[in-house]
Amino acid sequence: MPFTYQRTIHFADTDAAGVVYFANYLSLCHEAYEESLAAAGIDLKTFFSNNGVVVPVSKSSAEYLRPLVCGDRISISVTPVALSADSYKIDYEITRIASGKGAPAKRAAIVQTHHVCIGSKDRARVALPADLAAWVGGQTAV
Amino acid sequence: MPFTYQRTIHFADTDAAGVVYFANYLSLCHEAYEESLAAAGIDLKTFFSNNGVVVPVSKSSAEYLRPLVCGDRISISVTPVALSADSYKIDYEITRIASGKGAPAKRAAIVQTHHVCIGSKDRARVALPADLAAWVGGQTAV
Amino acid sequence: MPFTYQRTIHFADTDAAGVVYFANYLSLCHEAYEESLAAAGIDLKTFFSNNGVVVPVSKSSAEYLRPLVCGDRISISVTPVALSADSYKIDYEITRIASGKGAPAKRAAIVQTHHVCIGSKDRARVALPADLAAWVGGQTAV
Amino acid sequence: MPFTYQRTIHFADTDAAGVVYFANYLSLCHEAYEESLAAAGIDLKTFFSNNGVVVPVSKSSAEYLRPLVCGDRISISVTPVALSADSYKIDYEITRIASGKGAPAKRAAIVQTHHVCIGSKDRARVALPADLAAWVGGQTAV
Repeated sequence: MPFTYQRTIHFADTDAAGVVYFANYLSLCHEAYEESLAAAGIDLKTFFSNNGVVVPVSKSSAEYLRPLVCGDRISISVTPVALSADSYKIDYEITRIASGKGAPAKRAAIVQTHHVCIGSKDRARVALPADLAAWVGGQTAV
Repeated sequence: MPFTYQRTIHFADTDAAGVVYFANYLSLCHEAYEESLAAAGIDLKTFFSNNGVVVPVSKSSAEYLRPLVCGDRISISVTPVALSADSYKIDYEITRIASGKGAPAKRAAIVQTHHVCIGSKDRARVALPADLAAWVGGQTAV
Repeated sequence: MPFTYQRTIHFADTDAAGVVYFANYLSLCHEAYEESLAAAGIDLKTFFSNNGVVVPVSKSSAEYLRPLVCGDRISISVTPVALSADSYKIDYEITRIASGKGAPAKRAAIVQTHHVCIGSKDRARVALPADLAAWVGGQTAV
Repeated sequence: MPFTYQRTIHFADTDAAGVVYFANYLSLCHEAYEESLAAAGIDLKTFFSNNGVVVPVSKSSAEYLRPLVCGDRISISVTPVALSADSYKIDYEITRIASGKGAPAKRAAIVQTHHVCIGSKDRARVALPADLAAWVGGQTAV
């Protein structure tokens, strides 16, 4: 079972078309990633500061299936997959949760990010720290 | 007792100084405002779309007391005060919640917003809708 | 020659790793898209409001090649390609402009967005308005 | 004559009410501040990274006079005022520039920020660096 993160769409997420701005779908997924790391015991305060090793996003892709509006309740699943000793990808699925007013749950977007672990000074690749490798799950994708 | 809203500081909230970007403190408070409205039964989907009546922020002020970093857990109190039949202000207090590592709770910011209810076409003042007036509490500030 | 848009990286674009937040590369490209539309005489005030026809992003992808920091000067090229009577894609290339201090120009990211023209109410596909079709260029990609 | 900065309102600046999100007025002013520093020869890459001395915003206030929409052209004036050896305030005025369609220039917002210069580790006050003090202008407000 993948980790899932729930949250409500905020007004700041939206744009003048009345729906969530397309780039913010990526931010929503990154939040879910952070929550997944925290749930695995990884300290976000050190992970996301610049302290020697950083794991930037090297690629992203998103398929936008459905608009989301302020007040919508969403669920995001987070599925990491190891790619190598120093990289991984994460598959996300954003679902708009069924509302009490009869609107059924609907898939709103499919997102993927790739991450590469590097030294923050020389930006050369380094192996994932042990706790992060454990979070990814250790099995390299075929 | 004021309404309180809790959330975790995300990476997207921060800037290159390593802490929450100053303008984002206002967004954090607006999220708390939205959650408070929703808790009172107000439908955010209609409230924050442009459907005849809007309640824009007319003034804001913030006092930044303490930096917040990614992973910090915060609590925001929301205290609305009626100003007139068509306006109100909201007082917010952002507190960094005590961490298990011995860091005590600390007040991180004090924020205030003023809101005026207007027609979205002519932008003339109109009385607050009944559900919003009930949320504000009905007592005009002295 | 594709349209190009220049701007400086702002502090608000960055995150606690000290560089531009990955989702903001998409926002930078959308700005370039808006400037390209405006340069073609399309009125952004009506184009990006919800007035009957909307052209949301249906897909995005980005390859992040190089970090960008506050103060970096960038150039973004915008190359639209027609996909059908009601859709197009846009290829963007973000280049960090050579600085006077001897740092040469470097490609910072490659981004692509897909757009589909739909009615804002029924969300059914409709042909591109004439001015937008002219901006795209009329030739369908092979 | 104060420094002025011009830019166009982007889609990402807006929210579902169709206008610029209130917190983003502060970001617009911070952009103008950055451009003013750069115009004075201050290197933004070192100024806005965490390298020993930081000058965070300690207070902000904004009065929102007029909505701004995607495509609006704005001008922001930046007027710094010294408060002490280690602090200053900045007054901003955001004006929507007259459009060719007969819409006259209108003041859209009045914003103020306070800044305090501190050591990034101990967060104790330190005197403004010389180039920043020169930018502020040297005269302490009465």
